[in-house]
Order: sequence, then C-alpha cells, then structure tokens
Amino acid sequence: MQKGYRPLGHNRVEITDPLFRHYVDMIAEKVLPYQWDILNDRIQGTERSHCLANFRIAAGEMDGEFYGAVFQDSDVYKWLEAVSYSIESGKGSAFVPLAEQAIDLITRAQQPDGYLNTYYTLVKPRERWSNLREGHELYCAGYLIEAAVAYFNATGSKKLLNAAIRFADLIAATFGPGENQLHGYPGHQEIELALIRLYRVTQDPRYLETARYFIHQRGREPNYFIQEMKQIQNTGIFPELDDFDLKYAQAHIPPVEQRSIEGHAVRAIYMCAAMADLARECDDAKLAEASQALWKSVTEKKMFITGGIGSSGFLERFTTDYDLPNGSAYCETCASVGLMMFGQRMAALNKDASFYDTVEKALCNTVLAGISADGLRYFYVNPLEVWPDICLPHTSMAHVKPVRQQWFSVACCPTNVARTLASLGQYIYAEDEGALCIHQFISSRAEHQGRQGPVRISMEADIVRRGTVRISSDGPVNLCIRVPSWADHPVFQVDGSAFEPEIRNSYACIDLVAAGEILIDLHVSPRWVAASDSVRENAGKTALMLGPFVYCLEEADNGDNLPALILALDAGVRRGESLDCLPGDMPKLEYPGFRFSSGVGSLYGSPNFTLGETSITAVPYCLWCNRAPGEMLVWQKQRL
Amino acid sequence: MQKGYRPLGHNRVEITDPLFRHYVDMIAEKVLPYQWDILNDRIQGTERSHCLANFRIAAGEMDGEFYGAVFQDSDVYKWLEAVSYSIESGKGSAFVPLAEQAIDLITRAQQPDGYLNTYYTLVKPRERWSNLREGHELYCAGYLIEAAVAYFNATGSKKLLNAAIRFADLIAATFGPGENQLHGYPGHQEIELALIRLYRVTQDPRYLETARYFIHQRGREPNYFIQEMKQIQNTGIFPELDDFDLKYAQAHIPPVEQRSIEGHAVRAIYMCAAMADLARECDDAKLAEASQALWKSVTEKKMFITGGIGSSGFLERFTTDYDLPNGSAYCETCASVGLMMFGQRMAALNKDASFYDTVEKALCNTVLAGISADGLRYFYVNPLEVWPDICLPHTSMAHVKPVRQQWFSVACCPTNVARTLASLGQYIYAEDEGALCIHQFISSRAEHQGRQGPVRISMEADIVRRGTVRISSDGPVNLCIRVPSWADHPVFQVDGSAFEPEIRNSYACIDLVAAGEILIDLHVSPRWVAASDSVRENAGKTALMLGPFVYCLEEADNGDNLPALILALDAGVRRGESLDCLPGDMPKLEYPGFRFSSGVGSLYGSPNFTLGETSITAVPYCLWCNRAPGEMLVWQKQRL
Repeated sequence: MQKGYRPLGHNRVEITDPLFRHYVDMIAEKVLPYQWDILNDRIQGTERSHCLANFRIAAGEMDGEFYGAVFQDSDVYKWLEAVSYSIESGKGSAFVPLAEQAIDLITRAQQPDGYLNTYYTLVKPRERWSNLREGHELYCAGYLIEAAVAYFNATGSKKLLNAAIRFADLIAATFGPGENQLHGYPGHQEIELALIRLYRVTQDPRYLETARYFIHQRGREPNYFIQEMKQIQNTGIFPELDDFDLKYAQAHIPPVEQRSIEGHAVRAIYMCAAMADLARECDDAKLAEASQALWKSVTEKKMFITGGIGSSGFLERFTTDYDLPNGSAYCETCASVGLMMFGQRMAALNKDASFYDTVEKALCNTVLAGISADGLRYFYVNPLEVWPDICLPHTSMAHVKPVRQQWFSVACCPTNVARTLASLGQYIYAEDEGALCIHQFISSRAEHQGRQGPVRISMEADIVRRGTVRISSDGPVNLCIRVPSWADHPVFQVDGSAFEPEIRNSYACIDLVAAGEILIDLHVSPRWVAASDSVRENAGKTALMLGPFVYCLEEADNGDNLPALILALDAGVRRGESLDCLPGDMPKLEYPGFRFSSGVGSLYGSPNFTLGETSITAVPYCLWCNRAPGEMLVWQKQRL
Repeated sequence: MQKGYRPLGHNRVEITDPLFRHYVDMIAEKVLPYQWDILNDRIQGTERSHCLANFRIAAGEMDGEFYGAVFQDSDVYKWLEAVSYSIESGKGSAFVPLAEQAIDLITRAQQPDGYLNTYYTLVKPRERWSNLREGHELYCAGYLIEAAVAYFNATGSKKLLNAAIRFADLIAATFGPGENQLHGYPGHQEIELALIRLYRVTQDPRYLETARYFIHQRGREPNYFIQEMKQIQNTGIFPELDDFDLKYAQAHIPPVEQRSIEGHAVRAIYMCAAMADLARECDDAKLAEASQALWKSVTEKKMFITGGIGSSGFLERFTTDYDLPNGSAYCETCASVGLMMFGQRMAALNKDASFYDTVEKALCNTVLAGISADGLRYFYVNPLEVWPDICLPHTSMAHVKPVRQQWFSVACCPTNVARTLASLGQYIYAEDEGALCIHQFISSRAEHQGRQGPVRISMEADIVRRGTVRISSDGPVNLCIRVPSWADHPVFQVDGSAFEPEIRNSYACIDLVAAGEILIDLHVSPRWVAASDSVRENAGKTALMLGPFVYCLEEADNGDNLPALILALDAGVRRGESLDCLPGDMPKLEYPGFRFSSGVGSLYGSPNFTLGETSITAVPYCLWCNRAPGEMLVWQKQRL
C-alpha cells in the first residue's frame, strides 16, 4: 500500500471545467485516435513514426528494418498509458480493441527471456545493456511498465502487466550490487518511477529495491558511464553526445548528494520525481533532503515563470542559476510534465499543498501550451518570446518552432501531454488518512471514500472571471483544500456563513460533518509579476498573470514588433471579452501602454525616442498560437 | 596593373598612433614569435597546433600522422603573410630566417605536380578535390598564394611565389569550363581573392580568369555541391554539416544574382570582397551591382554596431535581417577582418570613402577586441553582452568564451588579426591617379609618389581626446581625405586659414600646391546611438560611441549585473581618465545613471521597482577584458 496520499482512481473523477474538460475530452475524442494513426504511419506529410511497424518486424510478422530513435518504442507505451486513463475515466471504451491489438503485438515482440526493445532486438541484438548512456532500454522499459500498470488499473487485464513483470524481473536480475549483476543505471531516468508503481501494484519488494539501486548507484565511483565510454566511443547514436559529460545525465555525483539540478532537464526532473517518491516509500530522510534541495534549485533558480525548465537549446538542458533566456529557452513540454510529477510527489512526501503551486504553474502554462486547442499540433519547445522570422533551421534558434508541429522525429512530448491530461484527476484530488485533499481548482465531480462512507464532491471553480470556488458534498467529509499562493487573502464560507479555517502546510482544513457547501473567494485579479534582480534577462520587465495563468502578447492582437511595447506599471488592467473559438471562456486582458520608437531610420543612428500611446491586449500563454501564427512575448518592458 | 586605388607599400607607411602603434609593434615583437612557437608546438597548456609538423611529415622528414583541422596548413600561411608585412615595414628582419625555414619546408611538402595540402597528402591522398564542400584545399591554396605575394613584395624572394604559382597553375588547369576540368568551386571562399592578387603581381590572366570562374560557376545548375553530396555523404569531417544546406556556402544561386547575404559569415564576406575586387578588375557591372546589394544587406540589416557579423552561434552564420542578438552573437573576428576587406574593395570599386566608415567600425571594435593588449590571447567570438556564468560548455552559449584564449583547435582568427594589423597601412592610405587618399585617422607617416615627385606626409590624429587631425606634407600633394560619418560638421584649415573643401563621395579634396598643413576639427564628442526599430533586441536601448569607437560597460568599473543599469538619455557624458596600463590613452566615459531593482526577493514576485542613482563608467569595447574578467555590455537600457 502506497504511503500517504493516494490519488483518486480515474473512474472516480469527472472533469467539468470549461477549459480542462475541452482538453480531456479532446484527448479521448481526437488526440488518441490521431496518435494511433501516427503510430501506424497513416498520417501523410509528417515525420514517420514506424513505432508499431518496429514491433511487427521484431515479432517476425513483417519484413523491414527498424526505423526511428532508439526510444521509438516508448511512443506506443505512452499512448497505451493515456488510453488506459481514458478507459478508466469512462471515455475510452472504443480504444479497448486497439489497445488489445497493440498489447498482443507488444507481447509477441517480447523475447523469450522477457527482454523487450525493438531497437536492440532488430539492430544490435548482441549489444543489450552495453550502452546504458544512450541506449534507452531502461527508459522504454519504464514506459512499458507504467502503461501496464495503468492498463491493469483501468481494465483488470493482466496481459500487458505480465509482460511488464517479466521484463522487470529480467531487469531486477540484471542490475544490482551482486557480483554477476551490472552495476549500471539508466542513461535517461524513468524506470525508477515505473518500478515504484509496479511495486505498489504487486507489492513485490524487488521492484522497489531495484529502483532504489538505480538511484543510489548513480554517479558512484568508479563511474559506470566512464567505464562504459572506455569500452565504446562514437556510437553514432547521438552525435551531439560525442563529448558526453556526466552532469548531462546527473551522474557526476550520487543523487543523494546533489543540491543543484543539472544537465538534461527531462532526465533530471524524472530523477527528482523518483527520488521524492522513494524518499516517501522508504522513509529515506537523506533522499528527502536531497529532493528538497533539488526542488529549491529548480523552482527558485532555474524555472521560467511558465513552469518551463531547461534554458539551453543545445542538449535540452539546465544551465546556470537565474539564466532564463526568454527567446532561446528550451522548456521542453516533457520537462514540465516531469515538474508536475516531481511537485506531486514532493507534496505527498511533505504533505504540503504549496508544492502544487508549481504543479499548477507547469500545467496551466507550458503543458497546456504544448498541445493545440484542436489537439492535432504540438510544441516540443516552449519559449517565452518568439519572433518567427528568426526560428531558422541550421541556426542557434533551430530548436524553436514558431507554430505547433504535426509530429516529431523524437516524439516524446505529444504522448506525454496525452497521458498527463488523460490522468488529470490525480493532480486535482488525493486521499490521505480519510481526508480528501483538493489540489487544483478545476471544476469536477469526484467520489471520495470518506471515514463514514462514500461521498460525492462537486467543485465549481471560476478562477479567471470571478475568482471563486464552490465545493459541495453530499455527505460528511474532511477536506484539505490547497490555498494557492496567488490568492489574495482568500475568504471562506461554509454553508453561507463566514468561516476561518485552520491553514496547515498551505491546506485550509475544513471538516464538513454533514452534506454542505464551501465557497471560497480567492480574490483573483490580474497582477503584475517581476523577477528577481538576478534574472538579468528580465531587468525592467514584468509579466501579467491571472491566477495561475501567465498571459502573453500575441501579434494577432498587438501587431508585430512586440518588444517595442512598453507598459506603465500603474496602468489599470481590465478583463476583456473571451478569446473567440478557444476553450475555457478565458478573458483577454487589456491595458494602456506605449509603442516605443527609436526614431532611427537606418540600422544605427542618433536616437529620437518616442512613446506613442497604444492599447495592449494580453491572452493566456497556454492558448497562444491557436489563432494566427506570429510573434509572442511574455515579459514586457516597463516604463521606468 | 591594378585599376584604381593602390595601397601604399608597407615600406612607405609608419604608424605612430599611440593606440595602433601599440598593436602593430606588438604583432612584430610578441605576437609573431608567440605564434611561431604555437605553430611549432612549443607552448604548453593550450590547443595543439601541429601545423609545421604536418608539413614535415608530408615532406617525408618526420614520422607521425596528420593532426588538426583539414585547413590546418592555412595557419602558417597567414603567419607568413603577417611576417611579410612586418618585414616590409621594417619591423621584421629577424623573421627572415624563420620565414625561409618555413618556406623551404613548405616547398619540400609540395607534390611533384604542384599540389600542396598536407591533410589530403597525408590522410586522403586519393581523394583530392573530391569534397570541395568541406575539404578546404582551395581555401588553403588561397592563403598560400596571399603569403607568397606578400613575401615576394616584402623581400623580392620568388621561392614561395614560384611554389604558389605551380599550385595556382594546377588549380587553373583543374577547374574551369572545359570538358576535362572540374566544374566546382571552393566550399570556403578565399582562393578568389588570392588569385586576383596573384594576377596583379604576375599579370597572368589565367589567374584572374580562374577567380572569375569560381565566382560565376558558384551556385549554377546543376549544382556542383548537390552532385558532390550524391557521391559522398557523412564524410565525418564536419559532423555539423551532415545536413549541409546550400545557403551555408552561398551556393544556392550564383553570386551575381544574390541580393541578401546568407550563410557562414566568413565564407560570405570573403566572397563579397572577391566579387567587388573582380567587378573593379573586370569592369563587370552586374557583379558591381550584386556587390552593392550584398554590401547593403550586410551593413544595413545584418551588422552589429561593433562591425561584428554573424548572428548564429551554430554554424557561425547570418540569420534574418535585423536579428542581432547581443549575448549569443557569433561575430567571428575573421568575419570582421573580411568586412574590412569587403569595404576596402567597395571603396576602390566606387571611389567612395564612405565605405571606410564600416572598415573603421570593424577595425576599431571587433578586430582590435579580437586580440589582447598583450598580444597573447584571442577572442574568436565577439558578442556585445557577456555574462561569464552562462558561457558553459555543452550549452547553446558554449561558443562564447568570457575571456580571450591562448589558442584554438580551429585557429583562423589569431593569424588573421596578425596579418590585418601588420598590414594596417593599406587601410589608411591609397594612391589613385596621382592623389593620396586618406581613409583612416591613424597617426602615421607616409611616403607618397605625387605627380611632382615624392612627398612625405605626416598625420597626427587625436580623435578621442580633441577630435582633431593634423596632416602635413613636405611638398605638393593632392589629398582626398575621408570625411567620416561620425564627424559633426568638420571644419578644415589649410596653413592656418579656414578652408571649405569640395566634398565628393565622402572625400574632402584638398590640393596642396606646396608643403603645407591641414588641420581638421572633426568635432568629436561622446554620442548616443540607437538602433532601427526593426532590431527587436535593442528596443529602448542605446549604445555610447566616441568617434568610431563603441564603448561598453565592464564589471570591473560598474559591479556585476550590468543589465540592471539604466541611463538617462539627457545625462551628460564626460571624458574621464585614461584606462590604466592599456594602450592608446583612451578615456573612460562617465555619466550618471540608475541601478534598477525589481524589489523581488524570490525568483518571481510582486514588483516594487526602484531606481537608485549611480554613476556609470564606459570603456572602449576594443579594450574590454584586458583588466579583469567579468560581465560586459554594449547596449544599455534607457529610462523612457
């Protein structure tokens, strides 16, 4: 049994929120069918996936050669995981035949000893586990296990779970401290999280132990990756890793000793999530301490205001504290998914709702921005300032795409967004010692197993228009409601009467002894946010937020050359009309400002600065580039 | 005979200017001996050169393997060229034995048919001319020829010239429109400039014709590089060029049709210089028109205020018009050397001094910044804003080094700076139809062959302190003196009397009928410069200039976090004391300003903006990072 918080089952949450229901429904109705077509190479004019074809070839049922990234297998696993959540939440019964078809195929591609990886099986059958740095075998195994657990939870079917268990057993036997075991660990973390989930389902301690081994063995001397590199060099898998550095893969020192988050952002943040999970599961105080330090490192020094992480386009990685370049930022969608996972586990570890401020920041901004409002286009990279003209191939800005893409040769993000949004309920509700924790203000209905039996909860949250949340229950319930950092002196009513709840660890604790209704006025107004002086990039600039939503300027509303727009801090911001045709009834925000001109007609000349009065319109960052392509900008210059 | 302008021989110019004499003397006294040691691998703790060792191995006089870049040979050629200028200007007689030693070695490494390239001779002897895109054989040949011409001019010795001629003859026979000739052209332009110089020395029209062929054949259909790529892929020479694009090497359309400067900055600007040179030499109006268009493209849309060019760190290339990112800029030192060459040739083509504004901009800022004041350290990359903490390996900012380096694995810049500064006289004076053109205000003495016989000219220029230039002649001379764009209503006196010269093509034309003295007051004060509104990066910012010198802020004077410094445009700027221990008696510039604080203690928070009064000190960009390492910034925020 998992310690502490347990998320509600996906069959016990129904999202009704106008913004998020759009996305959750869209995942089931459009995204998963679209992605199935992609995985089967039925969509023209986009990157070839070949993911299922690789399995068919590995199963001996099709001729051909492996195609794709070494981790191509993971795409179908994440699709299966997302499908499982959709099935569990009652939206995906139509997927069952497709899922069964995929699962049958996967199991047929599994090797007799349980090994399962089409790249190594087809391309390098004799080189299993020989290049952990780059090979991604454990990474793919992790997603397989997560999909298997999710599918089992959703359907009770053990077919994929058994395949995953067979592979997990092979992994647990292969890796460990024993003389005949490999003393290695994954080049890309993910298996750790998966093994903990598998442990929670099976209660088999070997899986927890193997996850622990991977975390504690990492970065120890003699360094496994250095030894591995002595055996193989210039593998050709990732040319950009020819001069691989240990920090890239967080293998420079053991994770428990790490205090600064370093290297590839997704690798790092997945590892952190696993560390926090392990710390809770194993009551490991040192791991908890390291998790806390890494949490502070990422959220207090290396995170964009959108919950994006990873400042360097090259190698998708963290750089220096406070180095947060708006235009060239990487901010991979997957990294913000990982930040949600880390925050969720830190909250569970510490029973502290404040971690959900960051979960929410990542969700409401970068993760939602990662997918188009029609579900068929994706951002992999999520900068905070875009000038489409400079997003050119063969340049330092090649990683930034000014419009969402159909698919990617490395397609980790689209399926990661799908599985995250399909399982959104886990970020909203959790049960802990009979109490129901509410972590996100996303309108929904939930079933809770209270101390006195099942109760139905209904939450109506209207954050962006009224700033209110109404929570009703049809029976007694002990509620722990997160008090968000962006609420301005929230006011509570219970059954129409003012109520001052005790606030503990950012939870407002309200024990309803019978059916009743809680009304919270979070006092949400548009607000300006500035950055620490240490963020050189944002000196003299402010960003506009409404609740957890970061707003941005788009060319569609403001014309081009957005960096020339200057605002007055004392300008009143008013909520405007909703964004046409876009989900969530999200208001535009409007305020007076100025358009700067240097007065210089040539490239350089004598300044004749002018500020022309203008009106500025901001829209939610999560919805940008859903109307017309163009410039976008979050951090706006302030008139000083 | 070269048409139009001819630069004075280096034996006819003596630099006396306190700033530039320092560098010119330093080249002869410290830099060339240091570089000789580098080329001989006698300097410890830095990148290995192996340049001369490669020649020894190719000559069969040493065992070993080729080491270095495919263009490693070019380093000794550029060193020889610089040495030649030093010898010609009377500073380098001590180099003659070293030069002879190198020349003898080079000739011994030459193949029987005249071919000369140690990489191909040692590593790929059967693959000559098979990979023009990457092979750099013609590039190295170009530098060989330039060195040979320079050494011949300096010493009259024909040994290297004959070797160069033998190779040039092979090249002229190998490349051309004939059936048995290759219809290719260099992957990196340089040979064109060299062949034109060789033609001017030898008057052999084949060299001019071959240069013309290379320029006119480039980018024609069927595209040679595309054909070549069909033969060879993934050569391994430059992994970053695995998906080579034609624009990178300006081979997308013929140069005569190009109107926008594209691709790798050094390749592009060398090509432009050759186009302008050819247009003049061959009276080619279409090439002149293309040269003019490319000049406007680079100087009006793609040039940093420092005369730096090349906006993308990845592939060292041009990007989009007005994309001029201060921090991530490439601005390779060699590219600004090329811009000087292009400007010099455009001025000669058009007999228009205004092109020298750009030559001067590149020289006085990026090129001088490329070398330390002690001559032993070099910048390859010259951004306009540096935060040392973020210049990390394995990131998008890895190309920026916050301090000058001892040497580079690709070491084109140090020797390019050396040959440029050692031949500085060619940028100051030129003769044309009996007149003496003065293009730079660099104190010096010159001998001019006037219409009535030789005259001695002395120029004392004090631009940064007094803004005055005093030019005296001991005999009659027809002077064409450039009127710089930064002069504010210049006032002329001849022999103490006011004089209003005719201004033609930015030349003040003054015919001294006898010995006399001209005094020009250029009215130089510190001035603020702004950028076009199209340069999004610089909205609301200004740069400070004094004459041609761009000023910058350094941490050494202003503390860290330079982006937080805000200035008031109406602030008075005063000349302060000189920079201690640095050449040129260059004044600091001082003015009042503010230090911005957001008032935010955490990473993000509610703004409480303050501006604290402070004093700001700016120093010449060309001298930055000669005192203490630290932050640097050119474009400063303006209080609006």
